[in-house]
Amino acid sequence: MPRPPFTELIASLPSTVPFVGPEALARRRGRPFRARIGANESVFGPSPKAIAAMREAAEHVWMYGDPEVHDIKVAIAAHHGVGPQNVAVGEGVDGLFGYAVRLFIEPGMTVASSLGAYPTFNFHVAGFGGRLVTTPYREDREDPEALVELAAREKARILFIANPDNPMGTWSPAERIGELIGRVPEGTMLFLDEAYGEFAPEGTLPPLEVANPQVIRFRTFSKAYGMAGLRVGYALGAPEVILAFDKIRNHFGVGRIAQAGAIAALADQAYLGEVIAQVKAGRERIAAIAEENGLRAIPSATNFVAVDCGRDGAFASKVLEGLLARDVFVRKPAIAPLDRTIRVSVGTRADLDLFAEMLPRALAEARGR
Amino acid sequence: MPRPPFTELIASLPSTVPFVGPEALARRRGRPFRARIGANESVFGPSPKAIAAMREAAEHVWMYGDPEVHDIKVAIAAHHGVGPQNVAVGEGVDGLFGYAVRLFIEPGMTVASSLGAYPTFNFHVAGFGGRLVTTPYREDREDPEALVELAAREKARILFIANPDNPMGTWSPAERIGELIGRVPEGTMLFLDEAYGEFAPEGTLPPLEVANPQVIRFRTFSKAYGMAGLRVGYALGAPEVILAFDKIRNHFGVGRIAQAGAIAALADQAYLGEVIAQVKAGRERIAAIAEENGLRAIPSATNFVAVDCGRDGAFASKVLEGLLARDVFVRKPAIAPLDRTIRVSVGTRADLDLFAEMLPRALAEARGR
Repeated sequence: MPRPPFTELIASLPSTVPFVGPEALARRRGRPFRARIGANESVFGPSPKAIAAMREAAEHVWMYGDPEVHDIKVAIAAHHGVGPQNVAVGEGVDGLFGYAVRLFIEPGMTVASSLGAYPTFNFHVAGFGGRLVTTPYREDREDPEALVELAAREKARILFIANPDNPMGTWSPAERIGELIGRVPEGTMLFLDEAYGEFAPEGTLPPLEVANPQVIRFRTFSKAYGMAGLRVGYALGAPEVILAFDKIRNHFGVGRIAQAGAIAALADQAYLGEVIAQVKAGRERIAAIAEENGLRAIPSATNFVAVDCGRDGAFASKVLEGLLARDVFVRKPAIAPLDRTIRVSVGTRADLDLFAEMLPRALAEARGR
Repeated sequence: MPRPPFTELIASLPSTVPFVGPEALARRRGRPFRARIGANESVFGPSPKAIAAMREAAEHVWMYGDPEVHDIKVAIAAHHGVGPQNVAVGEGVDGLFGYAVRLFIEPGMTVASSLGAYPTFNFHVAGFGGRLVTTPYREDREDPEALVELAAREKARILFIANPDNPMGTWSPAERIGELIGRVPEGTMLFLDEAYGEFAPEGTLPPLEVANPQVIRFRTFSKAYGMAGLRVGYALGAPEVILAFDKIRNHFGVGRIAQAGAIAALADQAYLGEVIAQVKAGRERIAAIAEENGLRAIPSATNFVAVDCGRDGAFASKVLEGLLARDVFVRKPAIAPLDRTIRVSVGTRADLDLFAEMLPRALAEARGR
């Protein structure tokens, strides 16, 4: 017998996925990459203490993780000087975006973002029937003032901004984000994605004002804490908003190893400091490589650098293909004018040596075509 | 400024959670449990090879897991003799229930289940606005014929049944489930929860007919494979249904350690066989303890046993409280008449020794009140 139909919304969604993983590319190519510097992962990995905690927890994985995620909430709250009631923990920021969009968006409602901003957020907006409206980046930066005006004009239920930004790596100072927070229109929630916040210079993250019910801030253990494959992110906000996640979240979704690893990583701030210093040096190296090749690196406050290839998106795509063919996994933004860049994550010295070796060849090939 | 409202549906949902974890109970009590035999976890843990794989993967957790979950899909498909296009992998069966309900249920649509069946499934039905209709258990078993009639009468979009069942541990033979599959009404999807399937006697699980677009079968690495804290489950079904999960799932949600552990566990079927034998012996021990105390153990095809305390739900609750107070974590069904039982998971010898020691005291106390 035929199956019942999917919901109208589901039927309308494409089967595309937000990102193709390097594993899928490697399968198609038939060989692995030699440098994996395309997914903004941290090659420096997590604290050795976090690895030890995960290895230890693997022995106890027959037990569900605490569904109330108590200990990790308490640790995060203490770290930020807020209360556990201000913290929701979920399966990465991606998972939390899904829940957070679902809390506020009914089909047809509007969400304001920047043209070319984080695709997985847009995936969840579409997944719950939201209508995305955008304003362009301005000089490769998200434009807080234009976003506020857009949200007000379109009566957006959610306004999304990342600071620092992905895919460009640019950032606004805390004062400017603070002004944005002060101007969020009535009827709008601000989703402030700070996944790369730990990498940013002092004065980038505005103070946490968790009493403000209009703002949810998103943080992760995937980037600076070096555990993208663990899936732990958290949201900070007002208790009434945080509590609502409990109405819909996958209560056992953050498992035993994940909780143990995240708690141990958070406790080792000295290691985090070392990673941040190494990432800064790596960004400088990528910028130097770009300059050696006559290209401009866009200043970044993240663990990646968008390198302006100097022509249009088609040209940058050729450069990207040339690098992929030479076993260097990088990615690039999909939407103009951001798509004139390739996005290179900070790698090990060996990763960046390979990038330095292959970039001129990829450029020559792209120019010669 | 005030925040925008939650969606109408979210506003209508309670903030209750499906289960209170033993960690939360331990925090309230101020001390840990001595026997953790209430959450149907596998005290025997996963294969040592799976533990080794997870420990090894912890070193590489800086990388996202493959978002296409390719290798694990291929392994699961080979194990069951189906194609990778018949397999969706997600954050435990709980996570997959969320996605699967979302594929089919718009607010107001009807879902048919048994009165007292798996609460987390009901949580997701409510979370997407579904209307739950139920038919009672019949002699402590889900009643396939009554469920089909209910689904037809109520024009249910989803019919849910677990075989073997949770919370009672009872089961129907494959032929009876096969008849149910043959009679699923037009316009209805059958969600067949086989989370405990590996424990069941031969002849319990009907053949996989993955061409049938009306059936999704759910399996997990949380129970027999001993990795509840890892969060890996999978759904088996027709390619058109399986593909739809990609429209909405958290693509990086099953992380690197999770994929590595599940692949290694699946490969060690010899270990699985040992666990199943130990669980069978443990069930017999629980039944013997029940009998020593003049109680009846309901025959089970799972890793837990529902012990009929012989009176009503209030009495069984007193027995439960007596066990909790004596450091034995068990649970019980919430809904009559199932609630006259306590549900005891198979534990280690020491766990069941403690249960044997404490059950008579808890019973005496309950009778004396």
